[in-house]
Amino acid sequence: MARPSPSQGTLLYAQSGGVTAVINTTAAGVISEARSRKVKVLAAHNGILGALNDDLFDTSALTPTQLRMLAHTPGGAFGSCRVKLKSLEEDRARYEQLLETFRRHDVRWFLYNGGNDSADTALKVSQLAQEFDYPLTCIGVPKTVDNDLAVTDCCPGFGSAAKYTAVSVRECALDVAAMAKTSTKVFVYEAMGRHAGWLAAAAGLAGRTEDEAPHIILFPERAYDEAAFLARVQAVVDRVGWCVVVASEGIRDAESRFVADAGASKDAFGHTQLGGVAAYLAGRVQQQLGMKVHWTLPDYLQRSARHIASQTDFEQARAVGRKAVQYALKGLNATMPVIRRLSDSPYRWKIVPAPLSEIANAEKKMPADFIRDDGYGITAEARRYLQPLIRGEAYPPYARDGMPKYLDLHI
Amino acid sequence: MARPSPSQGTLLYAQSGGVTAVINTTAAGVISEARSRKVKVLAAHNGILGALNDDLFDTSALTPTQLRMLAHTPGGAFGSCRVKLKSLEEDRARYEQLLETFRRHDVRWFLYNGGNDSADTALKVSQLAQEFDYPLTCIGVPKTVDNDLAVTDCCPGFGSAAKYTAVSVRECALDVAAMAKTSTKVFVYEAMGRHAGWLAAAAGLAGRTEDEAPHIILFPERAYDEAAFLARVQAVVDRVGWCVVVASEGIRDAESRFVADAGASKDAFGHTQLGGVAAYLAGRVQQQLGMKVHWTLPDYLQRSARHIASQTDFEQARAVGRKAVQYALKGLNATMPVIRRLSDSPYRWKIVPAPLSEIANAEKKMPADFIRDDGYGITAEARRYLQPLIRGEAYPPYARDGMPKYLDLHI
Repeated sequence: MARPSPSQGTLLYAQSGGVTAVINTTAAGVISEARSRKVKVLAAHNGILGALNDDLFDTSALTPTQLRMLAHTPGGAFGSCRVKLKSLEEDRARYEQLLETFRRHDVRWFLYNGGNDSADTALKVSQLAQEFDYPLTCIGVPKTVDNDLAVTDCCPGFGSAAKYTAVSVRECALDVAAMAKTSTKVFVYEAMGRHAGWLAAAAGLAGRTEDEAPHIILFPERAYDEAAFLARVQAVVDRVGWCVVVASEGIRDAESRFVADAGASKDAFGHTQLGGVAAYLAGRVQQQLGMKVHWTLPDYLQRSARHIASQTDFEQARAVGRKAVQYALKGLNATMPVIRRLSDSPYRWKIVPAPLSEIANAEKKMPADFIRDDGYGITAEARRYLQPLIRGEAYPPYARDGMPKYLDLHI
Repeated sequence: MARPSPSQGTLLYAQSGGVTAVINTTAAGVISEARSRKVKVLAAHNGILGALNDDLFDTSALTPTQLRMLAHTPGGAFGSCRVKLKSLEEDRARYEQLLETFRRHDVRWFLYNGGNDSADTALKVSQLAQEFDYPLTCIGVPKTVDNDLAVTDCCPGFGSAAKYTAVSVRECALDVAAMAKTSTKVFVYEAMGRHAGWLAAAAGLAGRTEDEAPHIILFPERAYDEAAFLARVQAVVDRVGWCVVVASEGIRDAESRFVADAGASKDAFGHTQLGGVAAYLAGRVQQQLGMKVHWTLPDYLQRSARHIASQTDFEQARAVGRKAVQYALKGLNATMPVIRRLSDSPYRWKIVPAPLSEIANAEKKMPADFIRDDGYGITAEARRYLQPLIRGEAYPPYARDGMPKYLDLHI
């Protein structure tokens, strides 16, 4: 395959899957780096759909001011999607449709910004291009608040959601502590995390000791035992006066049934749409222990909270965007720029390329030694890993009206 | 009644009712002002309970650093309570118990920091003191995220919750906009507000036009009509592609029944404990319109979110604390320092004294002209009122570990 010259051809960038507080930071990194190398960047509207339907946004329309705003804007500015292409054999027509769009716009570099499924799509597109002898370099760009991508030390988007989680849990804990004497004694916080308890674990950074909130964390990695849970809530309230519980949305009982399966529809990937664990647990505490309970389901707020983004996360999100362009122009086909941790303290990291084949469809579990032996909290190992990821406050600029200056392209 | 000299006697401060992101800012204002006048401040542990049970914290133990931290800490550092004393006749023994504590500690000034109920308690205490010829000056200090206190232009605590609400709604709207093509089309945000839609109205600051989120606000001031609501959601999705709904927890149907009465216990004031409006509405949209829906219940997060506190709110919270001490030392018995708005643009305000009798047990409704004629949004009048209250970012200081430096007295 001929290596394309940086001075010709187009780079196509697309966002995929659940968006984050900093996926647009990555987009801004991609566009800035490409501009500095005089490479044209088209952004697909709504992820792979825009590439399939030739619905593309020419990012040269973005002014320097808009580009700076983009880096500080949550959500997915170009639109994301939950569409999973099937295997090359099953979905061949659509993969060829993609190549058609690429040919039409002289796309030589395809950057797909998403999670495991997106890495798989990028890998398949690269395979098809080789088969058709179309000169294309495909790069997966990491993103997910779930922190479950293989190979990379952490995922852009996770650090900010983790910071939101730890800060919010500490704040509501101070609230409950003040109310507990005569009112709310138990507070339940529901964290995202379908299969792995990364965000629930991040809540653990809100406290240092077993008597500091969160007093109980429920991980999807451990079977939920109602009797043991209720006994522990009672014990914490007896000892501390109040109790903050953080529950991962994906907790299951001993028979592997989701504790609060919403019984709702499944998404395009066949994942069950969850929700309601906190409401369920709050109800159990109220009914069984007779305590006043409040609960929260932050839902999208936790992954879009750009106003409390982590500086580490912001820098890493920008870096993977820039490196993705560099790898693309170097022809490092079917790779992903991943974060490698060099040291914990001082926290140092660098970006290195990793093969998409090692990342596609894989899922990184939380290490077993991150969960305390009793199953209700995090270990020193977990703190060592998590703490640098929430460090620093990457505040967005605010307008005089008190609202953050976010970019809305209205495309 | 002899006016006590500022150089003798003790000032007793207590926090009451639901806490806020800035009630401790008021506490810090009280303590700083009193220190500068060499007046000793005791803080009651858990509001009026501490005063009843002689459970008091001597704030002279706070270092200057702790006092600065206090001003930046959410929750109620000395503990709050939900205890409503009855009338002087019905609860005479407890009121006399209060006077006993006052006598024991030479309390000459009593500052009660709370909402309508607390203003009523402070007023009754002042009446009893007069009856017993005990030299006491009682001051109510305003606080409530509900913004429903009479006389004052706004309530410390509300502006920060309003800013959290507007910022969060804009952030999750950007998220939904990115996902809507293939996934979530409707997002429902549940705002606090049992009887008045102040916080739901504040969400309106997230957008400017009917096509910007929030597209639909449901106020407790307007009867909830399900058919009309669902038709509007469908119309917004057809026009915009997605829809963000903000619902006040206290919305009622045409028969004045709470749309989502949790059917749970009533609190000490006889208020029904609500919750679940967003879950209910999300279910209706999913079932009736067949759209994928996400929803959030921020609950305590919205009132404890010190990390996104409004600078206006912070300054007003501190000012009412300082003025409360000044009014107390001047002997302005049975008054409250309230906020008077001098102009909208530029926004100017000052603190003036108002009689507790005009505030106790009263409830300020939202002006009718704050709600748009169609009932689903806010007017220019509402924006004019609300906008200055969310202005400025009063960030707390952060430690190197990425967490805010909040004070936890562990009392």
